[in-house]
Amino acid sequence: MSLSENPTTNKGVSRKKISSEREDALQRIIALAKGYLELLELGRFPTIEMPSRTTDNIVFDKKLGHYRLGSKMVRRSLRNIRHLKPAAQLTWLMQTVAGLIKSDKTSTLRDIFYMAEGEGLEFEDQSDSDRIVTELESIINHPREDFHVYPEERSAIFGDLEIEYTVKGYEGKKVNLTMHPDGIMIGPALATAKFMKTSADKILAIEKGAMFARFVEEKAWKKFNAILIHTAGQAPRATRKLIRRLNEAFDMPVYLFADADPWGMHICQVIISGSANAAHVPELATPSAVWAGVYASDIEKYKLPSSKLTDLDIKRLNELKKDIRYKNEPWASEIDVFFKIKRKAEQEAFSRYGLSFIVDEYLKKRLKELGA
Amino acid sequence: MSLSENPTTNKGVSRKKISSEREDALQRIIALAKGYLELLELGRFPTIEMPSRTTDNIVFDKKLGHYRLGSKMVRRSLRNIRHLKPAAQLTWLMQTVAGLIKSDKTSTLRDIFYMAEGEGLEFEDQSDSDRIVTELESIINHPREDFHVYPEERSAIFGDLEIEYTVKGYEGKKVNLTMHPDGIMIGPALATAKFMKTSADKILAIEKGAMFARFVEEKAWKKFNAILIHTAGQAPRATRKLIRRLNEAFDMPVYLFADADPWGMHICQVIISGSANAAHVPELATPSAVWAGVYASDIEKYKLPSSKLTDLDIKRLNELKKDIRYKNEPWASEIDVFFKIKRKAEQEAFSRYGLSFIVDEYLKKRLKELGA
Repeated sequence: MSLSENPTTNKGVSRKKISSEREDALQRIIALAKGYLELLELGRFPTIEMPSRTTDNIVFDKKLGHYRLGSKMVRRSLRNIRHLKPAAQLTWLMQTVAGLIKSDKTSTLRDIFYMAEGEGLEFEDQSDSDRIVTELESIINHPREDFHVYPEERSAIFGDLEIEYTVKGYEGKKVNLTMHPDGIMIGPALATAKFMKTSADKILAIEKGAMFARFVEEKAWKKFNAILIHTAGQAPRATRKLIRRLNEAFDMPVYLFADADPWGMHICQVIISGSANAAHVPELATPSAVWAGVYASDIEKYKLPSSKLTDLDIKRLNELKKDIRYKNEPWASEIDVFFKIKRKAEQEAFSRYGLSFIVDEYLKKRLKELGA
Repeated sequence: MSLSENPTTNKGVSRKKISSEREDALQRIIALAKGYLELLELGRFPTIEMPSRTTDNIVFDKKLGHYRLGSKMVRRSLRNIRHLKPAAQLTWLMQTVAGLIKSDKTSTLRDIFYMAEGEGLEFEDQSDSDRIVTELESIINHPREDFHVYPEERSAIFGDLEIEYTVKGYEGKKVNLTMHPDGIMIGPALATAKFMKTSADKILAIEKGAMFARFVEEKAWKKFNAILIHTAGQAPRATRKLIRRLNEAFDMPVYLFADADPWGMHICQVIISGSANAAHVPELATPSAVWAGVYASDIEKYKLPSSKLTDLDIKRLNELKKDIRYKNEPWASEIDVFFKIKRKAEQEAFSRYGLSFIVDEYLKKRLKELGA
């Protein structure tokens, strides 16, 4: 990020590892605003430069194992009348989210849109206000959760991890995440909590709520020393970030379980390598995370109850086959198996062998195969 | 429920109020099985009689304020060859869920379907196995959660309520539901927990996750002495039952908040008066619960950002207008307002007045209007 008449790029600027991401986000917003002011006081037109987020600047970094933005930059100058409106919107957003951080309140993309409407900001529709939020993310190099704009969706967590809250009213309070066997929600409080200690040595992320409940009930967390995370379908960004943080903080391997269909595969893939439209916030990806099932090949191996792939499933598989993230193993082979058997299966299909099978047999064997 | 060659009806059989619903469900299943055996040993054909669940036997009980089944009964005799298959399926289900209760394991409708497949039971598809589960519900007069078949969906709760767990591994453990500010999930453990004490005097149920987070953050629970429940859209059955249990245990009024559109209205209505297809388990309804917003009339009153009703919205409103549950107030008038203004609004629309407005102004005023 840079703000001057002679902008520099934000490449090579690595975020300082400080205790509070939101504090860093706030400081960057304030610095940005001060830069604005200084130039305005000198009678000059401020210019903001940010990485371009057009398709030709989104690259999949094979070495890093996730999407990132290329070197193409976009310059927005207040000298240019066409840039005035988005610049005013961005300034309003900076002010608004700085207020959110300072007052320790959270919001959503939807709230931001309505708040803008209330203050007479001219956004065409929500995708328009979302775009400005994304811009601020790429300028200050922080995901929006760091400036208190959270997803609507909630997922859950369970396991032996002690956390310490930092949210208002709970500062310094510690809890252990085995406290509630149905799981506790991953929202702003958990996303900003400090990790204190854990006896777990791995993370198991699970697509479905009922399977997450099964894993708690069958003591998968105890048997495999694991923290369990329920992704609730496609994992919300706050959950992806939490997985990454746990992975880094405790050097914990991450194993991902989803249905054996193209959608389940992609739920796992997005946790591993991120998505193209979040290329500007690569810290949501966990490149070392491992897809652990349910594989297409498991359908035959375990004679799972299965159903026929629909036309939509096939279409999606064809898309995945072309996707760079699916060129290596086991992805490529498993896609071929899908095309061969033309069947898909759900995680619950293992219930045909009784409710304990998925944890005591399948998971045990799979984790061993993966060297866990 | 009855099981004999001279069946009696299950009308007038009121469930014993015992500490454990699942224990009662188990006893009823065992009694049913014993009755089977006795008759078989006498060389007689067992007959099961259950309330009919066809449309003509589903009545809306105006006095009770919810759907219930009428007096029409269906008899299934093992003497009849066409009844043998469903009777075998039911027997298998009885055995399976008795095992679930005894081993303290939970499952889902989906699991039941797969478990049946594993054991060679012939169900055409899941709707076929779901139907047998519903039959067992109506025969033993217990919702399926009491015999450990839970919904896949999860909602959440937050507030000053101390509970004591009864699930395996957590027996006797007490926690307070303010322990985690993002909310804790409503799953099997919470559904079977005992309520110990609370300082709250009402329940606020909220459709959306982000709004639930707002209510926690803005201390709506403290300001209004309320237990907050996130319904996550249409409330899962376990959540509807929890609301009813809280309502009865503490004689607590229940207020319901959802989007101002036909879908939000119906989320509230189903919590209040149940649904036709759950007429055989009326204890999921909370007839005294009150729809507290967002009303169609609030859109004009508060000048809320709104959008045009779609054709689908209009179609749904026309259906609701004909529905007996919408004949009284404020439902009927609010439907008319929808037709007049042809607009809908989301809960988040109040964010146009800042993030605190919905709790500090709107909710405060509305609860006062409703005499809370």
